[in-house]
Amino acid sequence: MSKGIKDKVAIIGMGCTKFGELWDKSAEDLMVDAFKEAIKDAGIEAKDIQAAWQGNHYTEVNIGHSALPSSTTLKLPFIPVTHVENFCASGSEAFRGACYAVASGACDIALAIGVEKLKDLGYAGLPDARHVMTLGTLYRIIWPNHTGPGAFAMMATRYFDRYRLDPREGKRILAHISVKSHHNGSLNPKAHLRREITVEDVLKAPIVAWPLGLLDSCGVSDGAAAAIIVRAELAKNFRPDPIYVKALQIAADSGESLMYSQYDYTHVEPTYRAAIKAYEEASIKNPREEISMMEVHDCFSITELITYEDLLISPRGKAREDVESGFFELGGKIPCQPSGGLKCFGHPIGATGIRMLYEIYKQLQGKAEARQVEDPKIGLTHNIGGFPTRAVASVTLVGLQ
Amino acid sequence: MSKGIKDKVAIIGMGCTKFGELWDKSAEDLMVDAFKEAIKDAGIEAKDIQAAWQGNHYTEVNIGHSALPSSTTLKLPFIPVTHVENFCASGSEAFRGACYAVASGACDIALAIGVEKLKDLGYAGLPDARHVMTLGTLYRIIWPNHTGPGAFAMMATRYFDRYRLDPREGKRILAHISVKSHHNGSLNPKAHLRREITVEDVLKAPIVAWPLGLLDSCGVSDGAAAAIIVRAELAKNFRPDPIYVKALQIAADSGESLMYSQYDYTHVEPTYRAAIKAYEEASIKNPREEISMMEVHDCFSITELITYEDLLISPRGKAREDVESGFFELGGKIPCQPSGGLKCFGHPIGATGIRMLYEIYKQLQGKAEARQVEDPKIGLTHNIGGFPTRAVASVTLVGLQ
Repeated sequence: MSKGIKDKVAIIGMGCTKFGELWDKSAEDLMVDAFKEAIKDAGIEAKDIQAAWQGNHYTEVNIGHSALPSSTTLKLPFIPVTHVENFCASGSEAFRGACYAVASGACDIALAIGVEKLKDLGYAGLPDARHVMTLGTLYRIIWPNHTGPGAFAMMATRYFDRYRLDPREGKRILAHISVKSHHNGSLNPKAHLRREITVEDVLKAPIVAWPLGLLDSCGVSDGAAAAIIVRAELAKNFRPDPIYVKALQIAADSGESLMYSQYDYTHVEPTYRAAIKAYEEASIKNPREEISMMEVHDCFSITELITYEDLLISPRGKAREDVESGFFELGGKIPCQPSGGLKCFGHPIGATGIRMLYEIYKQLQGKAEARQVEDPKIGLTHNIGGFPTRAVASVTLVGLQ
Repeated sequence: MSKGIKDKVAIIGMGCTKFGELWDKSAEDLMVDAFKEAIKDAGIEAKDIQAAWQGNHYTEVNIGHSALPSSTTLKLPFIPVTHVENFCASGSEAFRGACYAVASGACDIALAIGVEKLKDLGYAGLPDARHVMTLGTLYRIIWPNHTGPGAFAMMATRYFDRYRLDPREGKRILAHISVKSHHNGSLNPKAHLRREITVEDVLKAPIVAWPLGLLDSCGVSDGAAAAIIVRAELAKNFRPDPIYVKALQIAADSGESLMYSQYDYTHVEPTYRAAIKAYEEASIKNPREEISMMEVHDCFSITELITYEDLLISPRGKAREDVESGFFELGGKIPCQPSGGLKCFGHPIGATGIRMLYEIYKQLQGKAEARQVEDPKIGLTHNIGGFPTRAVASVTLVGLQ
């Protein structure tokens, strides 16, 4: 049996733009900014890159289909550049493509880059005409006619019911998750939303889809992020503190459980499946003890709560206890969203997976400034695409050697 | 330095639908048909597959974005499935993704599948509103306002001029290419266009963009193709005659030569770059002697002529001599398009790269029936995306061990 790619590849440079409403920058501008920071950080030049993967979802209104926009924008002549897309996990897929290429021996130095301009798209999470076209035939037939907030809100009501949480109490627990992320985001110069909020603010915010309100929802932003990946044995030629890939797993749901109405609406099965495999690949026996910090896919506060359990950090139904004890706060046992998360960065689809890795990379190198987690060893990123009922999820583990 | 993936992976099963105007089949139907043939051919079941890559370009009007449509359609629960796209080389990218994953050690058995319904799209090679949206910002600015036929026709006129070919003579040489492909296609039950044509037919056909006429142009078809890839050392556990990947190279043009008006319009630089690297990876010193047969990207007859030279099979300006001597015909030294090529299969974008491999795979196994090439050892597939001025090109070499 294959054993995965543990310790076969390492990250030697990363770049990330400031995220936000970047009306004065094109998708190409953002790619160039993230790319330049990444190659400078790695101490290489553009010509050293042997292959590249770009993650982008709404290509039509961003950089366009194919590899050619990246190839042109980044001036990468005649190397292979590949466009990958997997809904909200598109950035993670770009990273995965580059890692596999290097681990396979096809090349020594590869680029993963992700970008999305959501503001230009007029994105509001609603299935308007453009989205319906994007989603294709199958989705028009089998997807319930609900929005992103509506679908995740159903997880919250079902979670409250299953674990006997009074809805007001449940909403207060979810509010703590947003308050924690906003605190971290307020310390991060690259975040979109940089202000502290209180539990009261969250509870008083307009409702989007009950029980989720405006401050339970991630922002809508533009941004780009990039990573330079090399064969592990070469990594120390470039820098003393490369970050090694310990596991990289993706799982996609084929929807069978939904079709047979077996879905419990209190977990995301692909997250759980990807996590199990990632821990096995990285030889992690007890994630609650061994993971130092996480960046997870908090498109909504309930998504983060459920992810604590799907990742086997909190026992089923017990994540609320960890929220209340401060387990996931910056000074806690496993800081979650030290960057501020999607809550404060928004979710430029193609960029997010790599943006999460950027935070973990800087944390492991001790360069996270006011957000620095104490002595981290292993970081986890988790990125999901799709709806609770039908998702693709990636779990990546990285660490110092 | 990395040495590529030569002999690290093998193909143990392939499937391919009949190509054509398949109004009664959806993209999902075609995927299922190609997939079922592939797993049956490999002697495995769907549950044996550990990861998958899907190639599709016009996702909006086909299966939709992300991996979820494939995951659902093929009933592949909880394995990673990834959508890759690189214009007309999207099928080759799906194959490359699966090969890298297996070669990296991430998995043992992977699926590559490509599909496209071009007929449903109303595709005519014209930059209508839908295409312009697909192509994105950069293309709207830098691409000349020309069609596919128009762009490739410019290669023909420039080629005739550069190599002192009287245009009538040039058009006759191009006609021989189409006549040869139609002969092969007439022998292939999976081809879309299955009739012999004559040089006269080609010369009398309506002009699309002078000198290219209707019979210099590939058809517009629907279709799907699939491949099962395993680690090379496992391949003989599945079948006695697996086909090994000897080289797999892609090159993308960043457009710098065009911007500085240095483009000669008589070659496609990424094809040449990918070919050089592929021959090096496969340790091929003299491609004209060592390649047994080829499936190349004949979107137009001139593309095939120029590709003979870009692949270093014919010397520059001399491909016409090889066309006239029958070098590329079924009984010739290097049969080109034994399947009938894009000319007879059309070019369902996401499927083509894998459909080409299907022909080579069957030929190497001695199963090409009336089209069988005598005792082939090494086959080449070549797939380009984009325009002559700005292209991504893949060159893949496969062979018996």
